[in-house]
Amino acid sequence: MDEMLAAIVENARPRHGNGAVATYIPELGKARADALGIAIVTVEGDSYDAGDSDYPFSIQSISKLVSLALALTELGEEQVFSRVGVDPTPDPFNSIMRLEMDRINRPYNPLVNAGAIAVISFLPYRESAARTSAVLDLARKLTGNNALAVNEAIYLSERTTSDRNRALAYFMRSTSILDGDVEDVLDTYFRQCSIEATVKDLAIMGATLAAGGINPVSGERVLSSRVCRVVRALMATCGMYDGSGEFAIRVGIPAKSGVGGGILAVVPRRMGIAVCGPALDAKGNSICGMQVLEELSREMRLRVL
Amino acid sequence: MDEMLAAIVENARPRHGNGAVATYIPELGKARADALGIAIVTVEGDSYDAGDSDYPFSIQSISKLVSLALALTELGEEQVFSRVGVDPTPDPFNSIMRLEMDRINRPYNPLVNAGAIAVISFLPYRESAARTSAVLDLARKLTGNNALAVNEAIYLSERTTSDRNRALAYFMRSTSILDGDVEDVLDTYFRQCSIEATVKDLAIMGATLAAGGINPVSGERVLSSRVCRVVRALMATCGMYDGSGEFAIRVGIPAKSGVGGGILAVVPRRMGIAVCGPALDAKGNSICGMQVLEELSREMRLRVL
Amino acid sequence: MDEMLAAIVENARPRHGNGAVATYIPELGKARADALGIAIVTVEGDSYDAGDSDYPFSIQSISKLVSLALALTELGEEQVFSRVGVDPTPDPFNSIMRLEMDRINRPYNPLVNAGAIAVISFLPYRESAARTSAVLDLARKLTGNNALAVNEAIYLSERTTSDRNRALAYFMRSTSILDGDVEDVLDTYFRQCSIEATVKDLAIMGATLAAGGINPVSGERVLSSRVCRVVRALMATCGMYDGSGEFAIRVGIPAKSGVGGGILAVVPRRMGIAVCGPALDAKGNSICGMQVLEELSREMRLRVL
Amino acid sequence: MDEMLAAIVENARPRHGNGAVATYIPELGKARADALGIAIVTVEGDSYDAGDSDYPFSIQSISKLVSLALALTELGEEQVFSRVGVDPTPDPFNSIMRLEMDRINRPYNPLVNAGAIAVISFLPYRESAARTSAVLDLARKLTGNNALAVNEAIYLSERTTSDRNRALAYFMRSTSILDGDVEDVLDTYFRQCSIEATVKDLAIMGATLAAGGINPVSGERVLSSRVCRVVRALMATCGMYDGSGEFAIRVGIPAKSGVGGGILAVVPRRMGIAVCGPALDAKGNSICGMQVLEELSREMRLRVL
Repeated sequence: MDEMLAAIVENARPRHGNGAVATYIPELGKARADALGIAIVTVEGDSYDAGDSDYPFSIQSISKLVSLALALTELGEEQVFSRVGVDPTPDPFNSIMRLEMDRINRPYNPLVNAGAIAVISFLPYRESAARTSAVLDLARKLTGNNALAVNEAIYLSERTTSDRNRALAYFMRSTSILDGDVEDVLDTYFRQCSIEATVKDLAIMGATLAAGGINPVSGERVLSSRVCRVVRALMATCGMYDGSGEFAIRVGIPAKSGVGGGILAVVPRRMGIAVCGPALDAKGNSICGMQVLEELSREMRLRVL
Repeated sequence: MDEMLAAIVENARPRHGNGAVATYIPELGKARADALGIAIVTVEGDSYDAGDSDYPFSIQSISKLVSLALALTELGEEQVFSRVGVDPTPDPFNSIMRLEMDRINRPYNPLVNAGAIAVISFLPYRESAARTSAVLDLARKLTGNNALAVNEAIYLSERTTSDRNRALAYFMRSTSILDGDVEDVLDTYFRQCSIEATVKDLAIMGATLAAGGINPVSGERVLSSRVCRVVRALMATCGMYDGSGEFAIRVGIPAKSGVGGGILAVVPRRMGIAVCGPALDAKGNSICGMQVLEELSREMRLRVL
Repeated sequence: MDEMLAAIVENARPRHGNGAVATYIPELGKARADALGIAIVTVEGDSYDAGDSDYPFSIQSISKLVSLALALTELGEEQVFSRVGVDPTPDPFNSIMRLEMDRINRPYNPLVNAGAIAVISFLPYRESAARTSAVLDLARKLTGNNALAVNEAIYLSERTTSDRNRALAYFMRSTSILDGDVEDVLDTYFRQCSIEATVKDLAIMGATLAAGGINPVSGERVLSSRVCRVVRALMATCGMYDGSGEFAIRVGIPAKSGVGGGILAVVPRRMGIAVCGPALDAKGNSICGMQVLEELSREMRLRVL
Repeated sequence: MDEMLAAIVENARPRHGNGAVATYIPELGKARADALGIAIVTVEGDSYDAGDSDYPFSIQSISKLVSLALALTELGEEQVFSRVGVDPTPDPFNSIMRLEMDRINRPYNPLVNAGAIAVISFLPYRESAARTSAVLDLARKLTGNNALAVNEAIYLSERTTSDRNRALAYFMRSTSILDGDVEDVLDTYFRQCSIEATVKDLAIMGATLAAGGINPVSGERVLSSRVCRVVRALMATCGMYDGSGEFAIRVGIPAKSGVGGGILAVVPRRMGIAVCGPALDAKGNSICGMQVLEELSREMRLRVL
């Protein structure tokens, strides 16, 4: 198994040449374009890895799964989805126009930026610090890694270069989707994006989602199986942004990507898979990461679609 | 099993009250709002049914799966997807604006009207009649029902009341997406929408897609497994129109609906499931059909997401 | 005066090099790219001209003024503007997306294609031939030229190459903006676009609009002064398509252009001015025509804005 | 003359009942819904007024004319219009979607919020205070009122309730239309909107624009005639937001409205007219103000279109 993984990684690694490390957040530009790692954790708790599996990277949009799961747990589906939709969208992840164009001016889904920012603003915590702690705490339980932390340099870089996210947040406050102080809400958003992890950490999070909420390494129930189902369904239809359709065809597994280069894939009832390769395609998804997942899906007959 | 199906059907039947039979095509308005039937065919060829499983209805948009499978078989993925996208869209099934708004002015995916009409126009047949025959022929092989035919009354009703589809087709010809005579292309489109079938027929089609292309009743290989994978992936992300996200959460199985009231669901490597209940919600999906599938998915642990 | 006009024309003529004759209607492609003519008729009936002032060209979108004036006369403002707006739009003249995007799905104004087609469909004539006759008859009265006629070659060319206009018309019928047979309505639209005239003809039409509806050459009252005011106001805000803002700054006179190369400008209470130069800019407006009007406006202090 | 004005004002005053004082900025909600005043100043310096002509109100969007004139004077047309368009738009004044939708992502014109904010950000002043001073200074010269000042209560109210304008500004910074600190740029924007004036003040500003830049009361040349032409042309096509088309038909004079209830109209080479009536229609224009201008335009034959 480890050999197969190693072969797939080394086969995919040279492909990074086509892509570019995200640079709109300066600190992300320091990532190694040729890094590539994979880790797998099964629902039984077995684990495998290959390549740069100890390379730490910021999880970026993969963190949207955590704040969504927290909101679903704290508030329930009905409350969350009365204010954020569940519709896939062909618009880019940072699109704003739909918020104005549509009759119901809510964000499309919780896995695009606008939706994730809105979800954070609903979380029932008064203080920004308490809200960020709750997200980080859930991320720690999902990965079983209590040392998981925000990378301060990336956080600061995000905070100073995120005009588009501020535009989204102020727009949503002007239409009463978002309550509270914009900078406070964004603070949690920037911090959760800046959580640093390895593919080993994320594979455990994936296994937990695959197992219906029980972390197979720690044995702890972290989420209800209902919340896991909702999160996985949204990953399948919206997780890879406007590349979700192509990913469904090529790989056929629910997954969520981040511009740090990570992709978290979940095979329900079987395993979590995490890859990281910082060179991105035009839609913001890891080129080598998708390549690795496509090959792995074929080799191990993982596709569920 | 049949008992469980019967119980689910009778439990769901009263819910049709919330919905309305499609009336924009007058002939569809004659459907029985309280009809409700289900059929299941496994990849081993076992079959089960309950309710109005012999009720004939026009398959409408479920036919888009057939013309798409035909195009993929005849032309290959690359050619098809160079002209039609694979992106889910939150716009309604008959939306036109995106064709103008986006930089790449191609239809979002082959399962919305614009995309399906475009796919038909690519099919390598000179004559409209030959093209329609090829689609009907494939539908017969997929269902194993050689008597499958176009309902002429519905076809004529579609043809005279389809201004929106004409607008889509003329627009796409003005932007060179669609070649050929618009009325010719639409003729095949209207005819395939008007193919009449029962849930028993469609369940076999679903089983064929689940089995990777081999019709488990006739034993014939009808499609390649690769084509089946592509079709199923598109069903999962775009098959229920702008209700695809909600369906993924509630049911978690690839599916395609039609305004005739049918829904075809495919559990890869396990079974095809067809339901029909003509009362529709605002998005054009069968209300009772979704209810039946949700309950069945939970009872039989069918969800793949 | 004639000398000044001649100088302005000869000064502007070489600029046509930057533009291109409209070719999307093949017959229009036969126009002389270097033709350039101007004619002026004052509200007192004095006339001046220079350059290719006897060059016949199809008036194209300038005809929208005629069918609009006819509709306003026959139906009144209230009825017309309950179904077509009066809003300028930054979208191109053949845009469709706004028809779907906006809450009130009516065309923006009567001087873009969708609006003009809708206006024609409202005209209270049962037969397409009678409707076309009524438009042609009004055009003859406005120009005082009873020999004004449709150029059949251009009409046929329009009819066979107008997928976009068919898309607009079918879309509007699907949303109940347009009643009646689409091809019938378009027949009048294509014919009025194909009316052939010279700048001398159009300058009289302009003088009639400037004079509040009395043709200063024939002495006949052709329109009410109220209808003229409405037409001139729409020319000022929407007459040059998405180039209306730039034209208001450069020239400052109400005007309407056509892709045949003509521009009709109206200085209220003073004069009508017509120019023709078939080489167009990207927005479909005559390059030399705008140049001539800009210089003339400055020389004769014509701007009203 | 004063009698006619008084009659028109008293005739229009009861109509305010249909409208509502702007309340999205709390401090504006304190305006008197039934206030109504008018003032006229001719290019010869004669002045007339009626009604509440000493009622002070914040000029709001009328200030966009001042910052635009300043930018045109300091930077020239070419530089200004390379970054902001001159196109009328049917979208509301605070629309954001077009900034994302269009290929060239610049604001439509300098008289909608996005365009005005962009124009302010171009002004060649390092410090926000200097920039605000320059705008206020030009407003004082245009009105000849050296006591013109910002209403601090309104300014503070604007600053704390302007999420939409913040969204516009952050979005434009994310697309590099806007340089500099967002809050700094908005500070000038909020302050210029909060300049308090009477219709007597504004009528002098209008007369200055009508006269080609020479203040007819002070005798000072304040703007070049070219800048006045550009400003007047934009008023004619974009000055009344998405009500510009209707205003052109009803009144036929270049004008600019503000949500404080003011409208400044300019009859080129003849006079400036200012009205104020705080009750607004759905598009943000003063109901009684438009009524007064329509009647005055008819009575005095002022329309230029």
